[in-house]
Amino acid sequence: MSGNIAAPVSVAVVGAGYWGPNLARNLLACPATDLRWVCDLELSRARDVVGARTAVSVTDTFDDVLNDPHVEAVAVATPAATHVSIALACLEAGKHVLVEKPLATSAADAEKLVAVAERSGLVLMTDHTYCYTAAVQRIHESVADGTMGQVQYVDSVRINLGLVQPDIDVFWDLAPHDLSILDYVLAGGCSPVRVAAQAADPIGAGVACIGYLTLQFESGLIAHIHVNWLSPTKIRTTIVGASRRIAVWDDLNPTHRLSLYDKGVDLCGDLTGADRRQALVAYRSGDMVAPALREKEALQEVVRELATSIRAGTRPRTDGEAGVRVVRVLEAAGRSIDAGGASVALAAEGSTER
Amino acid sequence: MSGNIAAPVSVAVVGAGYWGPNLARNLLACPATDLRWVCDLELSRARDVVGARTAVSVTDTFDDVLNDPHVEAVAVATPAATHVSIALACLEAGKHVLVEKPLATSAADAEKLVAVAERSGLVLMTDHTYCYTAAVQRIHESVADGTMGQVQYVDSVRINLGLVQPDIDVFWDLAPHDLSILDYVLAGGCSPVRVAAQAADPIGAGVACIGYLTLQFESGLIAHIHVNWLSPTKIRTTIVGASRRIAVWDDLNPTHRLSLYDKGVDLCGDLTGADRRQALVAYRSGDMVAPALREKEALQEVVRELATSIRAGTRPRTDGEAGVRVVRVLEAAGRSIDAGGASVALAAEGSTER
Amino acid sequence: MSGNIAAPVSVAVVGAGYWGPNLARNLLACPATDLRWVCDLELSRARDVVGARTAVSVTDTFDDVLNDPHVEAVAVATPAATHVSIALACLEAGKHVLVEKPLATSAADAEKLVAVAERSGLVLMTDHTYCYTAAVQRIHESVADGTMGQVQYVDSVRINLGLVQPDIDVFWDLAPHDLSILDYVLAGGCSPVRVAAQAADPIGAGVACIGYLTLQFESGLIAHIHVNWLSPTKIRTTIVGASRRIAVWDDLNPTHRLSLYDKGVDLCGDLTGADRRQALVAYRSGDMVAPALREKEALQEVVRELATSIRAGTRPRTDGEAGVRVVRVLEAAGRSIDAGGASVALAAEGSTER
Amino acid sequence: MSGNIAAPVSVAVVGAGYWGPNLARNLLACPATDLRWVCDLELSRARDVVGARTAVSVTDTFDDVLNDPHVEAVAVATPAATHVSIALACLEAGKHVLVEKPLATSAADAEKLVAVAERSGLVLMTDHTYCYTAAVQRIHESVADGTMGQVQYVDSVRINLGLVQPDIDVFWDLAPHDLSILDYVLAGGCSPVRVAAQAADPIGAGVACIGYLTLQFESGLIAHIHVNWLSPTKIRTTIVGASRRIAVWDDLNPTHRLSLYDKGVDLCGDLTGADRRQALVAYRSGDMVAPALREKEALQEVVRELATSIRAGTRPRTDGEAGVRVVRVLEAAGRSIDAGGASVALAAEGSTER
Repeated sequence: MSGNIAAPVSVAVVGAGYWGPNLARNLLACPATDLRWVCDLELSRARDVVGARTAVSVTDTFDDVLNDPHVEAVAVATPAATHVSIALACLEAGKHVLVEKPLATSAADAEKLVAVAERSGLVLMTDHTYCYTAAVQRIHESVADGTMGQVQYVDSVRINLGLVQPDIDVFWDLAPHDLSILDYVLAGGCSPVRVAAQAADPIGAGVACIGYLTLQFESGLIAHIHVNWLSPTKIRTTIVGASRRIAVWDDLNPTHRLSLYDKGVDLCGDLTGADRRQALVAYRSGDMVAPALREKEALQEVVRELATSIRAGTRPRTDGEAGVRVVRVLEAAGRSIDAGGASVALAAEGSTER
Repeated sequence: MSGNIAAPVSVAVVGAGYWGPNLARNLLACPATDLRWVCDLELSRARDVVGARTAVSVTDTFDDVLNDPHVEAVAVATPAATHVSIALACLEAGKHVLVEKPLATSAADAEKLVAVAERSGLVLMTDHTYCYTAAVQRIHESVADGTMGQVQYVDSVRINLGLVQPDIDVFWDLAPHDLSILDYVLAGGCSPVRVAAQAADPIGAGVACIGYLTLQFESGLIAHIHVNWLSPTKIRTTIVGASRRIAVWDDLNPTHRLSLYDKGVDLCGDLTGADRRQALVAYRSGDMVAPALREKEALQEVVRELATSIRAGTRPRTDGEAGVRVVRVLEAAGRSIDAGGASVALAAEGSTER
Repeated sequence: MSGNIAAPVSVAVVGAGYWGPNLARNLLACPATDLRWVCDLELSRARDVVGARTAVSVTDTFDDVLNDPHVEAVAVATPAATHVSIALACLEAGKHVLVEKPLATSAADAEKLVAVAERSGLVLMTDHTYCYTAAVQRIHESVADGTMGQVQYVDSVRINLGLVQPDIDVFWDLAPHDLSILDYVLAGGCSPVRVAAQAADPIGAGVACIGYLTLQFESGLIAHIHVNWLSPTKIRTTIVGASRRIAVWDDLNPTHRLSLYDKGVDLCGDLTGADRRQALVAYRSGDMVAPALREKEALQEVVRELATSIRAGTRPRTDGEAGVRVVRVLEAAGRSIDAGGASVALAAEGSTER
Repeated sequence: MSGNIAAPVSVAVVGAGYWGPNLARNLLACPATDLRWVCDLELSRARDVVGARTAVSVTDTFDDVLNDPHVEAVAVATPAATHVSIALACLEAGKHVLVEKPLATSAADAEKLVAVAERSGLVLMTDHTYCYTAAVQRIHESVADGTMGQVQYVDSVRINLGLVQPDIDVFWDLAPHDLSILDYVLAGGCSPVRVAAQAADPIGAGVACIGYLTLQFESGLIAHIHVNWLSPTKIRTTIVGASRRIAVWDDLNPTHRLSLYDKGVDLCGDLTGADRRQALVAYRSGDMVAPALREKEALQEVVRELATSIRAGTRPRTDGEAGVRVVRVLEAAGRSIDAGGASVALAAEGSTER
C-alpha cells in the first residue's frame, strides 16, 4: 500500500490542546505524512508539542497555514464549535481536511462541509479514531462477513472522571466515539430511526454530565449508550449482541480487548402462532475466543488512511458522511432531552438544514 | 439478639423451584427458624429440596401448610403471578409471610397485601435479598450518616445470559433487585417522581429481554438501571455517586465487592450568575478504600430478620411497603414503554387501586 | 453410568471440622450415596453438620461407625496426623475409604494404606478434589490427547490469608492440591526426579507459612509451586506451559476459569550445533480460547466416583497410589529444607518404608 | 527544584534499540535536559528515533559523542555486555553516565565503574526505572516511615512472552527490575545473605527462559522472584508483606496499581516457650486502601533525577552502588544454578574482583 504513495503528504495541525499533540506525534511518526506546522492561538502550546530540537514550524496565525502552498492537508483539533469555520477555510484554500470528532456542532454545518469537500474534490475525513482499532475493525469484519449473524443489540459504556470540554456536554464529548463505532460496525444498511435521551447535571455544571442514549432501528435492533463524566472508575466496554456470536470489547483490558462468545438464546418451534411463549428456548453456551489482535496505535492508522485517501483518491473509512450521521444522532438526542426524554424520529437526510 | 428469641419460628416454604431451595437451606441452617414443610405442586421437587434423610415434611397440597397450626410463617417462592393469592391465604390463616420479589404483579395487589397484614397484625416481609448483603448495608449506612454526602446519581447494571421466568419480562425479573437496593440506600426521604423505560425483544421471545430504566427524583438525582437476559458476560455493578464519596459495588468481585472513592468534581465560585460555566471546576482524586466486609450469605440475614420481626414485633428492613414501592416503579415502567419510552409520572400512593 | 449403580452406597463421615461438612452435604445430595453417620469427637459439631430435622445419625464414638454393618464406606476428614490410623481401622473393618488430602503424613504410612487396601480388595481413594473440576479435567484431556503438545513447565500459585491447620505447615496444607493436579495433568509417564524447597516463617508461627517448591523432571520439565498463608489477596492460578498450547487456570475467575493460549516461542534452524543461539526464534501469538466448562461442584464428582468405584469395581482417578506420590514429594520437600534448600532426589518407590 | 537548574543538561543517547528511543523521547520532553545526539551502529535506527523533522544529530560513530565538548552526559542503552566499556569511555571523557540495567554483566565490572566515577567526581546513575514509579516510591516511603511495620516477605512475579535479549538469560534480563525495587524498598539496612536459584530452558533456547530466585536475609525476611519469558499472560505483581500492612503492586492495573492491606496474622501469648504453637493466632482483616498516585512516566523522573544530580551535585536514588548490589545477586544466582540450585552465600563487597 505505501508503495503507491510517492511523496509524504504535508500536513499542518491546527489546535494544540488535548488531541492536537497526539495528531502531531503520529503525523511525525508516519512515513506517509510530513508535519510542517503546528498552529495554536497560544504559541507556547504549539511549541510544547514539537519541542525545542525540531524542524517543524509553529505559529499562532492560522493564515500562515492557509497561505503555505506546501501544506496539502490540515488536521483540525480545535474546540468543536470552531470546526466548521476552520475546516471550511481549509477546504476553500484547497486543502484536504481531517477533523476531530464531532465533525461539527450541527448536522447542517456538517452537511455543508461534506458538500463543499465534494464540490472541491478534496478529502474530508472525520477522526473517528476508534474505528481504526484492531478490535473494532475485527467486529466490523465479523458483522460484514456474517460470522456474527444478525446484530440484535449494542450496549456501550464510556464513563470516567472528567469534564474535558467547557463548551459541549457529555453527549457531544463522549458519545461520538460510541456512535461512530456503531455506525462503522453496522456498516451501511441500517440507520437508527428513533432516538431517546436522558440527561442529568447533578453537580450543577450547567451542562449534562451524565447521559443515556437509546437508538431504535427499523430491524428491531436497539443500541444504548451510557456516557458519564462523574464516574470514579473508567469503563470502556461495548457489547455487540448478534444471533450467532456476541462480541464484548473492553478497551481497557490490554490482555484481550476483544472476546467473541458463542453464547445466546435461540428460539425454536412455532413463533408465528399466538402462543409464541411456548416456543422452545435453547441456550447456547459455547467457547469464548479472544482473537489475537495486532496492537498498534489507532491514530497511526488514521493518519495513514488520510495519506492514502489523498494520494490514491480513495474514500476514507470514516468520511464526512460518517461525521454527519453521528452529528444527526447527537442533534436528535438534544431534541429528545428538550422533550423530556421522549423518543424522537431521526431527521431524514437534508431535513436539518436551516 | 438471638437471646430474645424464645423458640425457633416454625416456617413452611411454598414453591420449590429456583429460589425455594435456597430459602429452605437457610431456614434449616438458622437457629431462629425451624423448617416444617416444603410444599410444591410437584411433590418430587419438594422432596429433592429436603433430601432423603430428613424430618421435614413435604406436600403438594397447599392446604396442608395452611391447616398446620404449628406453622407460624410461610415463605412464598412461587411464580410472581401467584404471590398475591398465596400470600393472602396465608395472612388470612393467621400466618406471617415472607414473599419473594416482586411482592406482587401490580401495585394494587401489593397494597392489598400490606393492608391485610396491617389489619391482622402480621409480619409481611418482602425478600429483597440484596438489601441484606454487607455491601448494600454499608452503602446504606454511609448515605444515612452523611459520610457519602448528597447522592447525585445511581447507575446499576444487572446483565447475564438467562430467560429465567416464562411469565414475566426482564424488568419484573431482574429490576426488583436494583429498585429495592435503590429504595434501601436512599432510605426514606426521596422517591422517584418520573420514570422512563426502553425495552427490546430482539430474539422474538414475546417479552422484553433487554431493558433500560431511568428514574428522575425531585432532588435532581438520576437513577438508571440496565437489565438484560442476553448478555454473554455477567455483570452486577452498582455505582452510587454522591457529593463526597462514590461507591462502586461489584457483587462478582469476591476480593473487594465494595469500593469507596474519594473522587469527584466540585464546583466553586458563583454558580447562580448567568455565566455558571465560568465556575471553577476542581477534581478530587483521593484514595479508594475497600472496607472490610463480613462475608455471609444475605439470605441467612433475611430469615433471621423474619424471625426477629415475628418474635420482637419489629418492622423488617424490607417490609411490605418496600415491596409496594418497587412494584409501583415497575408498573410505571410498563406505562412508559406503552407510551414509546416517554417519561411518565410515578402514580401517587393509592392512586393505582383498581 | 448411574444406571449401573443398584443401591446407594452407605457412607459415614468421620471428622466434622472444615472439610467434613462439605463431604456430608455432597453425600446427601448425591443419588449414588446415602449418608448414615457423621462422627466427631465433639458431638455438637457433628449435630451442626446435619441440622435438627435430619434422619442421619451422629456420634462421638468412632466404633459406632466401624461396628455398623450397613456402613460400606467411610469418608475421613480428620486432622492429617490421624488419617493413617483411622483409615487402617476402616479398611480392617472391611470398609472402603475416601481420605482427605494429604493421604498420610509420611510416604511409609501412605504406602501401608495402599498395601492393606490392595490386599483386602477395598477401594482406597484420596480426596484430591481439584482433579474433579471441569478445568483440570480439560487440561488433563488436552495433555493426554496431544492437543497441548509437550508440557514444558508448570507454575502454580496458591496463596491467601489463613493458618488453617495447627499440626502441619503450609506445604502439607496447601501443596497437596497443586501436586495432585500436577500428578493428574501429567497422567502417568513422568514423575519428578528432584525436589528443592524454600520455606519461611517470618511471623514466628513455629511452622513454615510461606513455601516455594521446585520439581525437576527427567524430560526437562520444571514445576514450581508457591504456597503462602500470609498473602492478603487470594490467588489460585496454575499455568501449564506446553509446546503447542499454554493453559492458564484461574480458579477464582468464575467467568472463564480456563484459558488456552495458542502462544509460545518456537525455535527453528540448527539446534544441535555449537551456535544454537543463532537459531531462529519465532513467536506464536494466536487466539486464546476459553472453553465452555460445565460448572458443577467438584466434590459431587468425588463422591460419585467413590460410589462408582465401589459398585463397578473400577479404580478411582485419584486412588491411593496418587496419594502416595503426592506425599513422597512433600517428604522430599522437607528433606530439601533441612538441607538448606538444596535439590534432593525423590526417593524411589518403596525406599521410604521404615 | 527545577528553579535551581541553570541550563538544561546536554545529553547523548548511545544505543537506539529497544530502550534508547524511550530515553530519547523523555530527554526531549524534559525541560532540564537537552538531547544533542542519538548514536547507534546502525544509523537508520538512530534516525528513526528522532524522525525527519528534527534538530538532534545522529551518528554511527561513538567518538562523535565522546569528542563533542558540549555533551555533558551520556545515556547508555546498548546490549548489557557492552555497558562497562562504553560507560568507562564516557567517564574517562569526563561525561556523566546513566546506564540501562543491568549496570554491568559482572560485579567486578560494575564496581570498577563505581570506582572510576567516584574518582572523577562524575555522576554514575543506574537506570532502575521502576524505582521512579509512584507506586514503588510510595512503598519505599511506607517502609521507611514505619507505616508498614517490619517487612516479612517479598514475592515478585514478572512474566510474559518474550525472548528479548540474545546475549543474556531471563535472570539478567528481567530480574534487575525486581532486585532494584527490592533494594530500594528495603532502603539501606538489610542486604540478602544467601541466594538460591532454579532455572529451566524447556524450549532449548540455550539460555534460561524461566527462573526462580530466592533471597534469604539476616532478619528472616524472604524474597522470591519469578521471571519467565514463556508465559502467555503478562504479570507484573509484587507483594511486600510486612507486620502492619501488606502492599500489593500490580503494575498492569491502571485503575489502582497499589493496594495497601490492613491484613495479617498476629501471634500473641508466650512465643518463647517450647509450645509456641499454642500461641494465640489473631487474624487482622481490615480495610484495603488504594492510595491516589500521580500517574506519570517513570522515565521522565529518571532523566530529571539525572539532571538534578549533575546540576545540584546530589546522589541519584539509584546510583552506581545500587547497580552493583543488583549485579552481585545476579552473579550469586548464577553460582547457585551451577551448584544445582543450592543456596549460596552472597559474596561480600570487593570479594568478587578478579
